[in-house]
Amino acid sequence: MNYPRDLEKLISYYQKLPGIGEKSAERLAIATLEFSDEEAGEFSDAIKNAKKNLTRCAICGHLTDKEICNICADEARNKNIICVVEDYKSIFSFEKTGTFNGTYHVLDGLISPMDDIGPEDINLSSLVSRVEKLQSPELILALKPTVEGEATTLYIKKILENKKVTISRLSYGIPIGAEIDYLDNVTLEKALEDRKKISE
Amino acid sequence: MNYPRDLEKLISYYQKLPGIGEKSAERLAIATLEFSDEEAGEFSDAIKNAKKNLTRCAICGHLTDKEICNICADEARNKNIICVVEDYKSIFSFEKTGTFNGTYHVLDGLISPMDDIGPEDINLSSLVSRVEKLQSPELILALKPTVEGEATTLYIKKILENKKVTISRLSYGIPIGAEIDYLDNVTLEKALEDRKKISE
Repeated sequence: MNYPRDLEKLISYYQKLPGIGEKSAERLAIATLEFSDEEAGEFSDAIKNAKKNLTRCAICGHLTDKEICNICADEARNKNIICVVEDYKSIFSFEKTGTFNGTYHVLDGLISPMDDIGPEDINLSSLVSRVEKLQSPELILALKPTVEGEATTLYIKKILENKKVTISRLSYGIPIGAEIDYLDNVTLEKALEDRKKISE
Repeated sequence: MNYPRDLEKLISYYQKLPGIGEKSAERLAIATLEFSDEEAGEFSDAIKNAKKNLTRCAICGHLTDKEICNICADEARNKNIICVVEDYKSIFSFEKTGTFNGTYHVLDGLISPMDDIGPEDINLSSLVSRVEKLQSPELILALKPTVEGEATTLYIKKILENKKVTISRLSYGIPIGAEIDYLDNVTLEKALEDRKKISE
């Protein structure tokens, strides 16, 4: 295609974004041209500023523009409960539920021998030292139900074996709204295994 | 949601783009953070440069970074054939087909009495003066088949009545790959009306 050079450049950057194909990138680039000068300037600055100012929380590893993130700095949050997640994107999902009042710990990866990622390659030592400083900590492991997630869950359980800490993991089961007929075998098996008593 | 301020700003600008909801905007903003510093800087500059450098062709109204667009400046294109389009996005679509060798004229709108858009509000006078300068011009009206498109088509036909110019419009009919059973009545009616003889 014979786009003007500046438009082509803009399209090529939109195309680097996940889920944006050639056609969408063209649509987004043209829409950007239709922004007012002020909006386009602010959008451009927003990219630079986000990249420059956002860093990781010194305690939990969440995305923040301060040294300590808003969640770790919030006195109303229960510091004894730590929800362990693979990446900070999960924190945004949990925060949207609005029901979790503890804190988080971002591993920035999962143990994966296949990809040569060992325990020392993810944020585990800082988790152990956080746990050691607390009176009666509770860990909630919110890792995805894959080989890597399970391996990481088991490893964390093992290294904290002799510490005073309650560890749980998210329940597996039927997602809300799903048709049981269309569920995969493994999910159904897990839902049976994790079944919950509703009367004695 | 309690996003860091710079991330929130970036998300809000992505959300201004067409077809990008809250969830997608969050995903795109986070992906932008994962760009390298260099990439993010170039993306940011691309927005500013596209906005600053792109203007409209003095002849046809297409998007360009020069005074005259590549198509109007191309000596190999047939200047006697002018394809009249509503906006410059249509030009990108036509150029992708790779089969059209004429030039374009961007109206930047369609006549729409309902929205108080009259003939003087769109790029019609420049079209008339282009036509007047040519020996045996041919106009192809490529306007969408709506009330506004039809009104504009009829108006152009009328104002060029006494000029030496061949005028055609795009054919209406069945889109390639469509199931006839699922086509709307109007399209089917037009396809019947515009039917093409394939043997004598």
